[in-house]
Amino acid sequence: MSDDERGADEYSTRGAYVTSGAEFDRDTNYIEDRIVADPEAVRALPAPPPSQVGSVGFGLSSGAQAWPVEAGRYRLVAANACPWANRTVIVRRLLGLEDAISLGRPGPVHDVRSWTFDHEGQAQNVGDRDPVLGTERLQEHYFARFPGYPRGITVPAIVDIASGGVVTNDYPQITLDFSTEWRDFHREGAPDLLPGRGEPGGLDEMLAVITRVFTEVNNGVYRCGFAGSQDAYDAAYARLWEAMDWLEDRLSTRRYLMGGTITEADVRLFTTLARFDPVYHGHFKTNRNRLTEMDHLWGYARDLFQTPGFGDTIDFVQIKRHYYVTHEDINPTGIVPAGPDLSTWLDPHDRERLGGSPFGEGTPPDPVRPEERIAAGHNPLYPPAS
Amino acid sequence: MSDDERGADEYSTRGAYVTSGAEFDRDTNYIEDRIVADPEAVRALPAPPPSQVGSVGFGLSSGAQAWPVEAGRYRLVAANACPWANRTVIVRRLLGLEDAISLGRPGPVHDVRSWTFDHEGQAQNVGDRDPVLGTERLQEHYFARFPGYPRGITVPAIVDIASGGVVTNDYPQITLDFSTEWRDFHREGAPDLLPGRGEPGGLDEMLAVITRVFTEVNNGVYRCGFAGSQDAYDAAYARLWEAMDWLEDRLSTRRYLMGGTITEADVRLFTTLARFDPVYHGHFKTNRNRLTEMDHLWGYARDLFQTPGFGDTIDFVQIKRHYYVTHEDINPTGIVPAGPDLSTWLDPHDRERLGGSPFGEGTPPDPVRPEERIAAGHNPLYPPAS
Repeated sequence: MSDDERGADEYSTRGAYVTSGAEFDRDTNYIEDRIVADPEAVRALPAPPPSQVGSVGFGLSSGAQAWPVEAGRYRLVAANACPWANRTVIVRRLLGLEDAISLGRPGPVHDVRSWTFDHEGQAQNVGDRDPVLGTERLQEHYFARFPGYPRGITVPAIVDIASGGVVTNDYPQITLDFSTEWRDFHREGAPDLLPGRGEPGGLDEMLAVITRVFTEVNNGVYRCGFAGSQDAYDAAYARLWEAMDWLEDRLSTRRYLMGGTITEADVRLFTTLARFDPVYHGHFKTNRNRLTEMDHLWGYARDLFQTPGFGDTIDFVQIKRHYYVTHEDINPTGIVPAGPDLSTWLDPHDRERLGGSPFGEGTPPDPVRPEERIAAGHNPLYPPAS
Repeated sequence: MSDDERGADEYSTRGAYVTSGAEFDRDTNYIEDRIVADPEAVRALPAPPPSQVGSVGFGLSSGAQAWPVEAGRYRLVAANACPWANRTVIVRRLLGLEDAISLGRPGPVHDVRSWTFDHEGQAQNVGDRDPVLGTERLQEHYFARFPGYPRGITVPAIVDIASGGVVTNDYPQITLDFSTEWRDFHREGAPDLLPGRGEPGGLDEMLAVITRVFTEVNNGVYRCGFAGSQDAYDAAYARLWEAMDWLEDRLSTRRYLMGGTITEADVRLFTTLARFDPVYHGHFKTNRNRLTEMDHLWGYARDLFQTPGFGDTIDFVQIKRHYYVTHEDINPTGIVPAGPDLSTWLDPHDRERLGGSPFGEGTPPDPVRPEERIAAGHNPLYPPAS
C-alpha cells in the first residue's frame, strides 16, 4: 500500500501518519466478508453500491464471503481507545450480544506490529495474551487468514475463534450487521437502532446523515490532525467546523440525530465527540472551540454518555494514551496531557425537555458486566478507589 | 552551554527544546548591563540579591556595566511573538517612551541563527532588514558586543545603535529600569507601575507576587511544554494549576493583582495569559481548562486587553506562528492551528465593579502610532480590511 493510502490507527512501523505536503486520505479497503443469518440468501442479493458507511439490504461486495451467525463462534477484537472499535462495543452492548460474541481488548499503545493484547487492555492479572485467542498480537489473526497481509492491522476485527482468522474488519458494516443479522441473539428489549426504510427520518435519511458525519466529522478530525501542509489543514478545519455547526443546529430541536430515539447515527457521532476535547482539540488541532462550548452538542454528548451502553464503554485514559503515544510524528515526546477535567461529563444535561424516548419501545441495557468494566479512574462513572 | 541550561525562545540550530528525561530548566544567565539615569550613583550601590525577576534600588551585578540613559541612543529589539519581549513593549507604551527608545521588530519565526528582521516583523515594504540598524539578524548585534557569543540570542534586547552592540537582554530588569531610570522621558500622565516600598501591597509584596507568577506561570507553561518525561510534565502541570487557582482566587476580589491600579505585576501576568488559549493550552499541554473557563482570570485578562497599552500590543498571528513553527521537536509538522476564536477578547468584562482606577493618578496612553500598529487581522482590535 502506498503512503497516501495509509489509514489512521493502522499498522505503522515508524509512528508516521502524516504525509508531507498531502491531505490525509483514509485507506477504506477492508476485509469485506460478512457474518449473516442466512448466507445463501445474502449471496443472492445484489452487491452493495459504493459506500463509506455500510449498507442495509444488499449482498456481498465483489470477492467477499458470507459466514453464518453462530453464538460463541466469533470474538470481537476492539480496543477501548479506538473510535471505530468503540462503536462495535456500544452496539453489542445496546443489543445485548455479549453472550453471542465475546470481546477481546488490545491495549491502547501499538508495538511495531500494531495492536497488542498487552495487560493494559486486559482485566487485571490476565497478562499479555488474549485469554480466549491465546495470542499476543492482532496481527497473528490477520496472518492466519491472509499470510503476509499487507494492509492496516486495524480494530475492530472479528476473529473466527476456531481457525484464528479475521473474518472482517469492515467497521462500517459490522454494527449494521449486528442490528440486522444477529436479531435472533438480541436481548429482550433490545432497541431498534435502524429506522425503517421510507419512514420520514428513516433509513435513507439516516444513512445520509451518517455519511456526512463520517466524511466531515469522524474522519474530519483525522484530516485535520494528519494534514501534511498548512493548506490541507486549513481546508480540513473549515470542513470540520461547518459540519460541527450543522450538528449544533440540528441538535437544537432534536434530542437525537434522527429524532426522539437513539439510532446507529448517534453511536457513530458519539465515539468522536467523546474524544473531541481529550484528544482532537489539542492533538489534532481541531481547536476553534471545545465541545463543552457548544450548548446543544455538549448537552447531547452528556445525555448519551449518561445513557447505559454509551459512557460506560469510554476509557478516557486509554483513549488519551493511544493517540498521544502512537502518533509519534505529531507528538514525538509521547507525553500525554493531564487535562482536560472530564468530571463535567456527569453534569445535568436537561435534554429530556426535547421529548422522545432513548430506546423507543426497547429498554436500556443492564449494567456492564464486571469483567468488561472500564478500569476505575478511567471514566467519571467509575471513580478511582479512594 | 549545556543542553539542560538552554532557555526557551533561544538560539537553536535544530528546533530542539526538549531534553529527553529531564525537566525543562530555563537558562537565566543574561547580559546584565543596565541603562541608568546616573551611572556613577548606580555603580556605588550594593549588588542586587539573587533574583529571577529583577530588583529595585540596587546596583550592578558582578561584572555588569552601567550605561547612561539618553534619548535616541538605544533601540529596543522585541518580537511581537515573545512574551518576555511583549512586556517591554507594553511598559514602553504605558510610560510613553516611544520617542526616547525606538522599536525594532524581528519576525515570528527563527532561522538557524535565531531571530531575524524579516518582513513578517516589519511594517509593509521595509524588507528583510531592520530599518534603523540595517541588519538582517539580531545575532549580529550580540556578536558586535561579544564575538562568538555562545548563549541564547534572545529578545528583548537593547542595542546601542552607534556601536551595534547589545547592551542588555536581561528582561526581568529592563522593564523595572524603564520605570525607575527613564523617568525624565516618561510621558505626561505616565502611570506609576511600581508601588512604594513599605506600603501595604507595596513593592516587596509585588516582587513576591511577580516571583511566584514567574516561576509557576510565566515559566510554568514552558516547564509543561518542554518536559522531557511524563513525570516531569505531570509535576509541572500540577504546579501550574495550583498557581492558576491561586490567581483565580486572588483576582476574585482585586481588580488587578496588587489592588485597584495596574502595576508591573499585571504586565508580567498578562503576556502569558494572552498566549494561554492560542498556544499553551494545546502546544504546551496546559489543558486542564482554557483561560476562558476561569471567570475571574478571564475577566481580568479581557479588562487588561481592552485597556490602551495592553491588547493593542498583542499579535495573535505572530504569536501562534512563532511557537508552532519554531518548536520543531514538539510540533514537527509546523502546522499552526486555526483556532481558537479570539473575538471574545472584546467581550464585556464587568471588572469595573471591583472599583479602582487602572492608571491611578495617571492617564491612559494615546492610541498606538500607525507605524507600530499590529497588522490588521492579527488582533480583534484591528479587524481585517473587508
